[in-house]
Amino acid sequence: MVNILMPSPKIGALEHHGELSPRGLSTVFLSAAIVASMVAKRGVPRCIAEIAQEIEADLWRWDAFVKNARTAHHAPQGVIELMPVGTTHQYAFKYVNGHPDNVHQGLPTVMAFGVLADMATGFPKMLADLTLSTALRTAAMSVLMARFMARPQSRCMAIVGNGAQSEFQALGFAHGLGITHFRLMDIDPKASARLADHLRAEGLLVQVCNSVADAVQGADIVTTATADKRHACLLDLEQVAEGVHVNAIGGDCPGKTELGPRLLAAADRVCVEYAPQSRLEGDVQQMPEHFAVVESWQLVQGLQAGRLHERERTVFDSVGFALEDFSTLNVLWRWAQSDANIAALPLLPQLDDPKNLFASVRKLGIE
Amino acid sequence: MVNILMPSPKIGALEHHGELSPRGLSTVFLSAAIVASMVAKRGVPRCIAEIAQEIEADLWRWDAFVKNARTAHHAPQGVIELMPVGTTHQYAFKYVNGHPDNVHQGLPTVMAFGVLADMATGFPKMLADLTLSTALRTAAMSVLMARFMARPQSRCMAIVGNGAQSEFQALGFAHGLGITHFRLMDIDPKASARLADHLRAEGLLVQVCNSVADAVQGADIVTTATADKRHACLLDLEQVAEGVHVNAIGGDCPGKTELGPRLLAAADRVCVEYAPQSRLEGDVQQMPEHFAVVESWQLVQGLQAGRLHERERTVFDSVGFALEDFSTLNVLWRWAQSDANIAALPLLPQLDDPKNLFASVRKLGIE
Repeated sequence: MVNILMPSPKIGALEHHGELSPRGLSTVFLSAAIVASMVAKRGVPRCIAEIAQEIEADLWRWDAFVKNARTAHHAPQGVIELMPVGTTHQYAFKYVNGHPDNVHQGLPTVMAFGVLADMATGFPKMLADLTLSTALRTAAMSVLMARFMARPQSRCMAIVGNGAQSEFQALGFAHGLGITHFRLMDIDPKASARLADHLRAEGLLVQVCNSVADAVQGADIVTTATADKRHACLLDLEQVAEGVHVNAIGGDCPGKTELGPRLLAAADRVCVEYAPQSRLEGDVQQMPEHFAVVESWQLVQGLQAGRLHERERTVFDSVGFALEDFSTLNVLWRWAQSDANIAALPLLPQLDDPKNLFASVRKLGIE
Repeated sequence: MVNILMPSPKIGALEHHGELSPRGLSTVFLSAAIVASMVAKRGVPRCIAEIAQEIEADLWRWDAFVKNARTAHHAPQGVIELMPVGTTHQYAFKYVNGHPDNVHQGLPTVMAFGVLADMATGFPKMLADLTLSTALRTAAMSVLMARFMARPQSRCMAIVGNGAQSEFQALGFAHGLGITHFRLMDIDPKASARLADHLRAEGLLVQVCNSVADAVQGADIVTTATADKRHACLLDLEQVAEGVHVNAIGGDCPGKTELGPRLLAAADRVCVEYAPQSRLEGDVQQMPEHFAVVESWQLVQGLQAGRLHERERTVFDSVGFALEDFSTLNVLWRWAQSDANIAALPLLPQLDDPKNLFASVRKLGIE
């Protein structure tokens, strides 16, 4: 199949959000390559910082959003989810799959794209790859929550699971939280070696470890980011010292968990993004219905403390919530305004008379 | 904003559904213009017939689908909905808005696009405009249901509401059911005049009427397709003679109905697409929770009769269900295989190593 490189004219009206041309609008299209070039131009750390800032601003106006748990379609090979969220002014959704066996076919396990739409007209003003952006926003959310939950002097982070997300987590924490030491552990030594190479190239201190117990030694923060789709218990209370913040990324759908229930029960504070979704999909799916959690917006708005003292164990049980993608799409939209390489996609019809849909066929002559 | 006409190379591998290229897949892109040209090439009646056939085949395997009521995001100006449905092999969703005031800005009230994906990998193999296709599939579903519910000798149809959908309904019924006479009524005389012109050009007999009571005189089938977003009662029991089939298209979301409750209560048979959705969105939203309805797949599979005798009043309470869009996307996919003008969209990343997402940024040199 041929990949078409889209032509790249300047889009004059892009700076005017949602402005109508005489015969309608075109959808701004950000291909995976365009998004990658936007990110490369700015650098991963700056992108994570900007997305974290946008998420934080959106969490300040949490009540402005209509929230939905995502809809998931499961098949034996994997899952496809739709994650919609919106305000009275804007709407966004993300399409994301999870297919663990895809790597054997040369495809990513997780692929994602998203749409940003204008609620005044319902027009989808932007279509963008979100595969790379999902990794960025997941790291951004982790860093944002760790600012409230980890000890301020944290310098060492263990990363258990060294897959596609891990570089983004590491760079996010290095630049956003001042982490300088990374202790890596993966059942695939090649994955750890790749991550170690990438992080050393960034001037970070790295130690590759042979076991989870080894990796968590001396860590102020433990990030779990494994892909295995089952109830794993790769981290339980014994491995987590007092004062440690656990940033749990991988447990994110029913039947897929990473933390032992004793760790969750003993933690002084467990933060989730949106409790109705996290109780189904997060590590807290293992806990009773009324297990106490705080929501991320409560930390941002100062309604709940992320940490009360040095010796607390804290957990951010991340599953990924639609609002984070909404924030990310808005950052991408801003970036697109100053980018001359953006293409417009003629996805929807431009009708001479919007009441006369039939004419769009008829004028073509045959019917 | 500039509209980019996509280049149109031949896509060699398109005939091999879902085949992987060495570095992944590209998404087949059907712009609104491409879909319109595909439809114009075949003619509207043939397209409606082919989509009706596909819907019928899918209704035969109703149990193979995982059904969901659509998710709707409401704002003062309108609504945006996502309509997902799938089997173990395929997944599809439609994005569709409803913004009655859009016509004042030169935009259609309803715009739609859809994605067809492969459940084996989660890859979105096609992105297509569905604005025109939504009108085609709505007509296709109406014709399919009328085959079971209308009297076989039906020749005259009233169309109340002569907006964007009406030509498609008329042509569908003319070619799929043998309707030769059309009686048109709209509060906007220009809408009826436009529809009358289009239908006369097709060799059909047309009478423009001044009232609903006038339009339904002698009609075997009454189609209601109005856009007003309120509990209208444009057709009640008094206007519907014995033996008439009512094809109610316009009442399709909470608070938007067209039929009087006495007509629904007196009808011998009311058919809906998917009861959990229709009881919220259809004309039957006005009826008690356990009001008797049959579902379309039951008619197709012969488990329920659409009509038992000549004098029955029957109602198809159409709201539009995700399965109809799934069927339509599969028809579009087939058409795309024999079309040399199809473009592939580089939406998702093509990774050298699918576990190494970071490299997609890093190889660009800056970060």
